[in-house]
Amino acid sequence: MLYELKGNAVVSQSGGPTGVINASLVGVIEAAQKNPNIEKIYGAVHAVAGMVRDEFVDLTDLDAETLEIIAGSPSSALGSSRDKPDAEYCRNIVEVLKKRGIRYFFYIGGNDSANTCKIVNEQADKLNYDIRAFHVPKTIDNDLRTTDHCPGYGTAAQFVARALKGDDLDNRALPGVKIDVIMGRDAGWLTAAASLAKDNEDDGPHLIYVPERPVSMEKFVSDVQMVYAKYGRCVVAVSEGIRDEDNVTWAKKLAENAEVDAHGNVQLSGTGALADFLAGKIKANTEIKRVRADTFGYLQRSFAGLQSKVDAEEARETGRKAVEFSMEFDSGSAIMKRVGSGADYKVEFERTELANVAEFTKDLPDEFINEAGNGITDAYKEYALPLVGELPKTGYLGNLPKV
Amino acid sequence: MLYELKGNAVVSQSGGPTGVINASLVGVIEAAQKNPNIEKIYGAVHAVAGMVRDEFVDLTDLDAETLEIIAGSPSSALGSSRDKPDAEYCRNIVEVLKKRGIRYFFYIGGNDSANTCKIVNEQADKLNYDIRAFHVPKTIDNDLRTTDHCPGYGTAAQFVARALKGDDLDNRALPGVKIDVIMGRDAGWLTAAASLAKDNEDDGPHLIYVPERPVSMEKFVSDVQMVYAKYGRCVVAVSEGIRDEDNVTWAKKLAENAEVDAHGNVQLSGTGALADFLAGKIKANTEIKRVRADTFGYLQRSFAGLQSKVDAEEARETGRKAVEFSMEFDSGSAIMKRVGSGADYKVEFERTELANVAEFTKDLPDEFINEAGNGITDAYKEYALPLVGELPKTGYLGNLPKV
Repeated sequence: MLYELKGNAVVSQSGGPTGVINASLVGVIEAAQKNPNIEKIYGAVHAVAGMVRDEFVDLTDLDAETLEIIAGSPSSALGSSRDKPDAEYCRNIVEVLKKRGIRYFFYIGGNDSANTCKIVNEQADKLNYDIRAFHVPKTIDNDLRTTDHCPGYGTAAQFVARALKGDDLDNRALPGVKIDVIMGRDAGWLTAAASLAKDNEDDGPHLIYVPERPVSMEKFVSDVQMVYAKYGRCVVAVSEGIRDEDNVTWAKKLAENAEVDAHGNVQLSGTGALADFLAGKIKANTEIKRVRADTFGYLQRSFAGLQSKVDAEEARETGRKAVEFSMEFDSGSAIMKRVGSGADYKVEFERTELANVAEFTKDLPDEFINEAGNGITDAYKEYALPLVGELPKTGYLGNLPKV
Repeated sequence: MLYELKGNAVVSQSGGPTGVINASLVGVIEAAQKNPNIEKIYGAVHAVAGMVRDEFVDLTDLDAETLEIIAGSPSSALGSSRDKPDAEYCRNIVEVLKKRGIRYFFYIGGNDSANTCKIVNEQADKLNYDIRAFHVPKTIDNDLRTTDHCPGYGTAAQFVARALKGDDLDNRALPGVKIDVIMGRDAGWLTAAASLAKDNEDDGPHLIYVPERPVSMEKFVSDVQMVYAKYGRCVVAVSEGIRDEDNVTWAKKLAENAEVDAHGNVQLSGTGALADFLAGKIKANTEIKRVRADTFGYLQRSFAGLQSKVDAEEARETGRKAVEFSMEFDSGSAIMKRVGSGADYKVEFERTELANVAEFTKDLPDEFINEAGNGITDAYKEYALPLVGELPKTGYLGNLPKV
């Protein structure tokens, strides 16, 4: 236990929304409400952008019913921001915190947010203003270091797995090639979740491509052809960060090749462009007639009423733990350590230094990707299933023996 | 009660899958299992295409557990087909049915499937083979005539409403213009479901465009600008069948303007093209910086584990009723009549002539579209809510009074 520090608290949410970032928010609020060292609980609207503009709402007396609704709502209930504050920006934030008597700073976000916490803490030190700065991890990308996994990932992964489960059945009904483009520019964590949809040998997704394994267009097309020859259909999960052999993403190549038209008539760099481009390649280079492509888009991160139970609970507990840790440490991030697997899955919460989370991100480890670089291993499934929760049981009758 | 006819039955599924078409399949199977006039229950794989190829599976003894799993699974468990059979095709089908002693023909599908039922029945008459041909309505498009609504619609509408509820919160967190393209080439029923996401005056979707109300690009852009000026953000739900003032769809215009490149480098007619095109128009003609667009794609019709309870029950009952009606009539379609609304919502099942369903489709009625042609009325909500079921409660805190 560090020395006792009494004062107000602020909580805020940064970066892309997730399905459980509000559960973490509620975890912070309810723990802060009970904590004798914390007086007022402010919410900064639109993250650091709201802080510098001094835009705060009062969360001190939110009742339990409201908190439950918020905890179950997707997206960031306090609004978000993409700003990446530098030292000066953070000094301005500290001035605002000082003015409001805020001693506790809880920032829910990814590695950039951990970095913001760090800079705010440093600037507070320079201004001789005592503050406890805590990072509460969230990201659907699951690419934070140190923590076993990130709150937000299990829910987005469940969305992807359920989408692929449905889409594979759709593709059985009307066979052809189906390409699904999934979020994750730098790491294949969310795309890997597509593999959870696969129960039987001939289930899709039959091919999965992640940024960690660059693939040539020739290989991509021939992979699809081989699966199609075998099953008469092929479901492909592709990360939006899929890379050509030269390690440049296809998305970047597409954007560079796009003819910019001031009237907006040609849009090759839009959301759907990569999916349509890949489908076009299959159509142009094979004899396969039915080729379809979808881009899951924001549905993956903000779909109302869909949460992984484990993820929502862990997200909330992460918020609570951050408040607890702020009584003992000057700064840090509330991370999870897995202490049991499979049916005995369990996590313990730990505090780690902000620097451990702030810098760099985490790719899919080699043992989660198959040798051919076009699929995901069972080791990944073992890792991910407890976070995602049980998936709906589904069935198909068209493959019963013909009579 | 028509004269008693003993024999085998066949059931099959046609057209685009839905989230509850398998509930109808199970309804047919379980009613047929109990019916003393029906001996074997065949499933034709891939609809009429499987029938002419004599590809049948045996569903007679499927157990209750399997049936429950199938009833809860999205997509068409017997496979589907897009074939639209003519008289000759249907004569070949009748030959196969005759060979297998099939007297009961249950076909789950849209208006084209009702038409197929009709032709099969006519061809059987010509061949002096007695058959009972029944259509079991399904479509996410909700555009069948005579019936109050179609099994499959409530579930797809729930997906769209939940997606928009989440997306509106996402847009509150990171404000800008968000365009969501929703299925429905000819009628705006599914796009209208976006309106169910809206609880408060400033909730999105702020604008909704359906094929029934052509809109010029100028009007579209100025509508978005007006909403953005008022709320600092704008969520737009657009039917994939959105039309220009000349009544030609933008999708068609895009496809015609697409430069076809044999290497697949340019894809303007893909799934994501319309969304990206509309986003491009907003970017090019306004000062708004953050403009995003998603196309919901197949997720709308085949998402594992998502069903409207009422829709799933009605779909199943529709299947059961078709079997019941086939004991009393030579042919027909099992339709629903609404006999209570609001909290007293209730339907009754009726048999109607195939011809009443087979020809033409049903647009959104005028009273469901607002005067400006860019929104959906409360009358629609009253119609649709019982079919969709209760939506998740969500909340936002960023609009609390600033302190």
